[in-house]
Amino acid sequence: MIVDNAIYVDGRRAAEPGTLKETYEAVRERRGVAWIGLYRPTQEEFSSVSEEFGLHDLAVEDATEAHQRPKLERYGGTLFVVLKPARYIDEEERVEFGEIHVFVGDDFVVTVRHSEAPDIGAVRRSLEADPELLRRGPEAILHAIMDRVVDDYMPVVEGLGIDISEIEAEVFGGNPNVSRRIYELSREVIEFQRATEPLRGVLGNVIQDEPTDVDPEVRRYLRDVQDHLLQVTERLAGFRELLQSILSVNLTLSSLAQNEEVKKISAWAAILFAPTLIGTVYGMNFRYMPELHWFFGYPFALVLMVLTSLTLYLVFKRRGWL
Amino acid sequence: MIVDNAIYVDGRRAAEPGTLKETYEAVRERRGVAWIGLYRPTQEEFSSVSEEFGLHDLAVEDATEAHQRPKLERYGGTLFVVLKPARYIDEEERVEFGEIHVFVGDDFVVTVRHSEAPDIGAVRRSLEADPELLRRGPEAILHAIMDRVVDDYMPVVEGLGIDISEIEAEVFGGNPNVSRRIYELSREVIEFQRATEPLRGVLGNVIQDEPTDVDPEVRRYLRDVQDHLLQVTERLAGFRELLQSILSVNLTLSSLAQNEEVKKISAWAAILFAPTLIGTVYGMNFRYMPELHWFFGYPFALVLMVLTSLTLYLVFKRRGWL
Amino acid sequence: MIVDNAIYVDGRRAAEPGTLKETYEAVRERRGVAWIGLYRPTQEEFSSVSEEFGLHDLAVEDATEAHQRPKLERYGGTLFVVLKPARYIDEEERVEFGEIHVFVGDDFVVTVRHSEAPDIGAVRRSLEADPELLRRGPEAILHAIMDRVVDDYMPVVEGLGIDISEIEAEVFGGNPNVSRRIYELSREVIEFQRATEPLRGVLGNVIQDEPTDVDPEVRRYLRDVQDHLLQVTERLAGFRELLQSILSVNLTLSSLAQNEEVKKISAWAAILFAPTLIGTVYGMNFRYMPELHWFFGYPFALVLMVLTSLTLYLVFKRRGWL
Amino acid sequence: MIVDNAIYVDGRRAAEPGTLKETYEAVRERRGVAWIGLYRPTQEEFSSVSEEFGLHDLAVEDATEAHQRPKLERYGGTLFVVLKPARYIDEEERVEFGEIHVFVGDDFVVTVRHSEAPDIGAVRRSLEADPELLRRGPEAILHAIMDRVVDDYMPVVEGLGIDISEIEAEVFGGNPNVSRRIYELSREVIEFQRATEPLRGVLGNVIQDEPTDVDPEVRRYLRDVQDHLLQVTERLAGFRELLQSILSVNLTLSSLAQNEEVKKISAWAAILFAPTLIGTVYGMNFRYMPELHWFFGYPFALVLMVLTSLTLYLVFKRRGWL
Amino acid sequence: MIVDNAIYVDGRRAAEPGTLKETYEAVRERRGVAWIGLYRPTQEEFSSVSEEFGLHDLAVEDATEAHQRPKLERYGGTLFVVLKPARYIDEEERVEFGEIHVFVGDDFVVTVRHSEAPDIGAVRRSLEADPELLRRGPEAILHAIMDRVVDDYMPVVEGLGIDISEIEAEVFGGNPNVSRRIYELSREVIEFQRATEPLRGVLGNVIQDEPTDVDPEVRRYLRDVQDHLLQVTERLAGFRELLQSILSVNLTLSSLAQNEEVKKISAWAAILFAPTLIGTVYGMNFRYMPELHWFFGYPFALVLMVLTSLTLYLVFKRRGWL
Repeated sequence: MIVDNAIYVDGRRAAEPGTLKETYEAVRERRGVAWIGLYRPTQEEFSSVSEEFGLHDLAVEDATEAHQRPKLERYGGTLFVVLKPARYIDEEERVEFGEIHVFVGDDFVVTVRHSEAPDIGAVRRSLEADPELLRRGPEAILHAIMDRVVDDYMPVVEGLGIDISEIEAEVFGGNPNVSRRIYELSREVIEFQRATEPLRGVLGNVIQDEPTDVDPEVRRYLRDVQDHLLQVTERLAGFRELLQSILSVNLTLSSLAQNEEVKKISAWAAILFAPTLIGTVYGMNFRYMPELHWFFGYPFALVLMVLTSLTLYLVFKRRGWL
Repeated sequence: MIVDNAIYVDGRRAAEPGTLKETYEAVRERRGVAWIGLYRPTQEEFSSVSEEFGLHDLAVEDATEAHQRPKLERYGGTLFVVLKPARYIDEEERVEFGEIHVFVGDDFVVTVRHSEAPDIGAVRRSLEADPELLRRGPEAILHAIMDRVVDDYMPVVEGLGIDISEIEAEVFGGNPNVSRRIYELSREVIEFQRATEPLRGVLGNVIQDEPTDVDPEVRRYLRDVQDHLLQVTERLAGFRELLQSILSVNLTLSSLAQNEEVKKISAWAAILFAPTLIGTVYGMNFRYMPELHWFFGYPFALVLMVLTSLTLYLVFKRRGWL
Repeated sequence: MIVDNAIYVDGRRAAEPGTLKETYEAVRERRGVAWIGLYRPTQEEFSSVSEEFGLHDLAVEDATEAHQRPKLERYGGTLFVVLKPARYIDEEERVEFGEIHVFVGDDFVVTVRHSEAPDIGAVRRSLEADPELLRRGPEAILHAIMDRVVDDYMPVVEGLGIDISEIEAEVFGGNPNVSRRIYELSREVIEFQRATEPLRGVLGNVIQDEPTDVDPEVRRYLRDVQDHLLQVTERLAGFRELLQSILSVNLTLSSLAQNEEVKKISAWAAILFAPTLIGTVYGMNFRYMPELHWFFGYPFALVLMVLTSLTLYLVFKRRGWL
Repeated sequence: MIVDNAIYVDGRRAAEPGTLKETYEAVRERRGVAWIGLYRPTQEEFSSVSEEFGLHDLAVEDATEAHQRPKLERYGGTLFVVLKPARYIDEEERVEFGEIHVFVGDDFVVTVRHSEAPDIGAVRRSLEADPELLRRGPEAILHAIMDRVVDDYMPVVEGLGIDISEIEAEVFGGNPNVSRRIYELSREVIEFQRATEPLRGVLGNVIQDEPTDVDPEVRRYLRDVQDHLLQVTERLAGFRELLQSILSVNLTLSSLAQNEEVKKISAWAAILFAPTLIGTVYGMNFRYMPELHWFFGYPFALVLMVLTSLTLYLVFKRRGWL
Repeated sequence: MIVDNAIYVDGRRAAEPGTLKETYEAVRERRGVAWIGLYRPTQEEFSSVSEEFGLHDLAVEDATEAHQRPKLERYGGTLFVVLKPARYIDEEERVEFGEIHVFVGDDFVVTVRHSEAPDIGAVRRSLEADPELLRRGPEAILHAIMDRVVDDYMPVVEGLGIDISEIEAEVFGGNPNVSRRIYELSREVIEFQRATEPLRGVLGNVIQDEPTDVDPEVRRYLRDVQDHLLQVTERLAGFRELLQSILSVNLTLSSLAQNEEVKKISAWAAILFAPTLIGTVYGMNFRYMPELHWFFGYPFALVLMVLTSLTLYLVFKRRGWL
């Protein structure tokens, strides 16, 4: 699906060709920079674009089927970038990953979105509001998209951070059944790391390895994006460590809880058992047992039982076993 | 065993010599690129090939006995590559590793297969269907084989991923006896890593270090293969971490399960024991015990027993111990 | 808020302009080095500064909102450094992180503080007391601030070290309930590492990558700062390892404590149960049981009970179960 | 002790001087390459050699006392290499490390063996059988010795692999007392890693850093040795990971075994206790208890006891507690 | 305190000036190399030295107060090296760290010792006994001190190794209370690593980065020191891994010990409880219970009790529960 299709001249939206053909012509006549936005394009839609701009077969194959890892590939004069935007779905405590492919040529940008988020339309609007930046060429568009993707990582990281706090509260609040949540969060973090770690290399490549192409200002902006990305990856690495620690802590707490229970149960066993001993004593059949003949022997025994249990109860209470 | 033996001219299968000798002559007369496919060749079969193409003794030794690690070696003008294809055997939850050796010269390729999978014949057929690529020379053949080997890793990774999901389901479903499965899966993943990690260096060497030999297009394709390989190795690294976490989680859950059992058992002990206490009381031999003389004393005692047990049962039930 | 605003000539405080405007003029006329100290400046306060000194938009954006990671960025001739000072709050056993931004130009330094600590005023006073150093230019000011920030890490590290010693004492003193403290200390250490690790790269960049700008003497001083920083990061890494070990040790000790308790409880169960057995024996209804007819049969049985319990008690005592 | 002492000309054993002096003369007159084999030489034996060939004091000191780590040192024109051969002693499940020192000059090789294994005589014989290789100079001899040392690592690795399989069988066969074996095997693997890891650097140095000295063919052979070494070190790293996993698994299984035992014991306690309850009931002293007066009251009670126990037994059996 | 103060000419102790002043003069007149040995110098003592030799303020500050990490700093023509000698205090099982600072100029060496060990006097004597080496200049002195410091690490490593062996013996000998010792040894090893790891970089810098200054022979000797250091650091890394393993093993063994105890206790419970069941049976009040009227009924019951207990004892004995 073609989402948007515009020609930019000097940082301003100059034309909105009705068809891709008109866009191609405009580009061929060097009348400006084209930015074509596609959403899950069909094989046919995409083949038109790829033929016109001479996109490489491998990139085309990658672009029509998702499930790539973040990467940057240079085919002749065209840069092909794969990004993995992320979105935090709060109710499921799950991170959902999307996929965006960006082709950057000398005077065109083609963005291919394979997921709902992020809203590239919003990126386009904010760029159009900053002609100063947009005029710096296709790389500025690439930067804007990367910036959005990385900025959108932040709330995800926050969401995971909140989950970890919740887990901490649960673990230390005495609910050891959070093992599953800890594990699933670990899995989310690992997947998230897989989506963001390779991006460091991608950004590093755009910034450092191609000193000739990229506008120095855009490079500065890209460094800013990289900085935000580092913040994301460093916090994720910290999350991994925290989750591992909390797993150990949870095990220790569960072991301690067992100690407490064993003590509690043993205390109650003693409280129950002591009167039985007394009962057994007065159940003996000796001929000469004075208590048996007392008029208040029976109540005496009962009181003795209750007193023994009560004493034990208080003893255990004071020792913190109950 | 000689599986296939053909001469390619301009990307097309030009001749199928009946014997290796004819192939050698064709190559000597520079009539095209030879591709000889061998399957577990005997010492004699292979010595003919190695003499003709001047293969290095060390490579020959490696090629006739399997059990190599993935590697790339350059002997004079000939490239020697060892690959470890993998196959997932679902019923045994086991990864089976094969071994393929590829010799790449200026105008010949010799493939030596030491395992059933993968089907190099299929690779040959699909390459023959793409003369454009095949014409780019022996490296294109090398790429095609590597591509197949790495593509075949994907279903193995998927299979392992499914196993991990199953294990998760079992662990959280309360079956702690999956320790063995977790361990064996870890072992599979470690072995798989050993088969794939060195391949990164091999591909890196083919792509970067020899800028003069390899066709730029082929290099681009190799980079695509490397990208897929990275996806494999990154997921495997993630699997290792997940399996380690799940081992810890399993230990914690087993500890928690023990807590639950201790509680349950203790509850039943109390339920059984309480009536014993009552029975002991009425088994005492005091002369003056009014209940003993009641007509309904015995039923009264039985009802008392049942009521006590029932009360305890309900108490424990409400506390979640039963 | 403008905290301080002065012009330095030859390492001495030459002027204290009443407004920023006068400062700008002085700088423009190359009359000395300006050092403007700001504390949580408003958008307006800061825009005046940034316009005058041509600070980059990205840096300005960073400077007005805190929550950056330590970094160094070079925008044209201006160096932008983000530092994360730390302060140890003893009563809460918590590390509090601040944020300082420093802009270093050819003849100006702008410091933006976003936290109470550290006292940059003190840094300024001590620098003013050492004109020899201050004369070496804006980098000397940068060094002085970094030096203070890194020196202030030391007491934090000491505080964490003391906490670890306390935890060790508690763990080995038999109080296994320190899991929470261990975990929270781990979290503090991880956060602290996140604040200090990137600074290594920042210092490395200032020292090595820009051989032309920085005065060799200042570089030497920066190397000294880096050395102190390394001491901090190495100790933190050691803390992480110690805390992980102590978590394991705590688990082991909790398991051992359980062993001890099980032994103790079992011993008491035996001591209680043995007289019950005797009581049960003399509660049997055999016609011919000589003891039942002894005049001292009952006291005999009681003494037997007590003796059995006492014997068991002594046996368990000697075996260390009680 | 002088084990062997020969002069090689053109890859063939040309002379066997009766004394070291004759060997020195032959070398001085450039009549061939000398290969002197020593076994735990005394200070005096070695000083003669070291003086003649101008070996460096440091190397001499190293060579007369063992306990070095694998290393390569270049003193002027002489290469000094320390190797740690390994041998697997099956009955003790222990890896024994030896030590070999090799001095390689322009026209001499001195090998100093400090351990029984490996048999350098065999290396010499097989080299003498391949004059083509031997003629390539002293480095070929160095290669042959390294090749033997690394090849001898393989059976050690295999032995450790078999031990791990045995341990796996024991762990999953329900014998948790393998902790000690796991630990000791870990120690062996760590020591083995310490003997083999530095060798990677040694080989890398011989192969890459000295492009002028080494015959390209010998270099190729050394690369083959390095490849085998990598196989060893990769498998050892895998062993470490497996042993760590199996330690965790063992702990989990021990915890699960405890759960099983607690269940089993509790089940038997219930089976034993239920008849006690019945007995206690019929031990009560109520005047009106019909069963007590039945003629078959006693057998009835006994049957009731057995039936209750049997029912409990079957219930627990079906639940898998017994 | 000035410990020693001498002028060396051509490797020989030429003069022993009575005061530092005379030493300064001798150096100024280029009459030889001065080696001044200080022990915890006061601010004043040191300021004389630092002024004379133009030592850098930063180095002076470092030298008068200890607590540095091992490092190498070059201030103009003067090398400043910080070393952390170690000493093993056997009775406390503790590693004590000292500190030595060495200033190396073109024709002077100043050593500042802040700890008892090591005996630099002994280093001086042994150097004076080897004029050949001493003549090679101040770097030879630096080497000799480093050599001594690193050699002194060896007995510390041995001591730690012995401690680990003792711990192993205790752990496998069934004493699980070694957790504390394991932990404290881990802490010692971590501290020791912190003292030795940075030294690798220091030595590497002296050897590699300054190709112009250092005598090649001295460099060779330094490489030997580095080799010994590597042996130390590799063994320490091994110790860390062993201690981590043994911590896990200890936990497992403690868990197994608990299993054994639970079994043992349960067995004794059954042995005690079985006669109680019999006693309860014969305590029932049925009118028709033949055994009650037997003359030998009571002894029969007692024998039955003993036999049951004995049988259970033997059964548990054979099953290995007792």
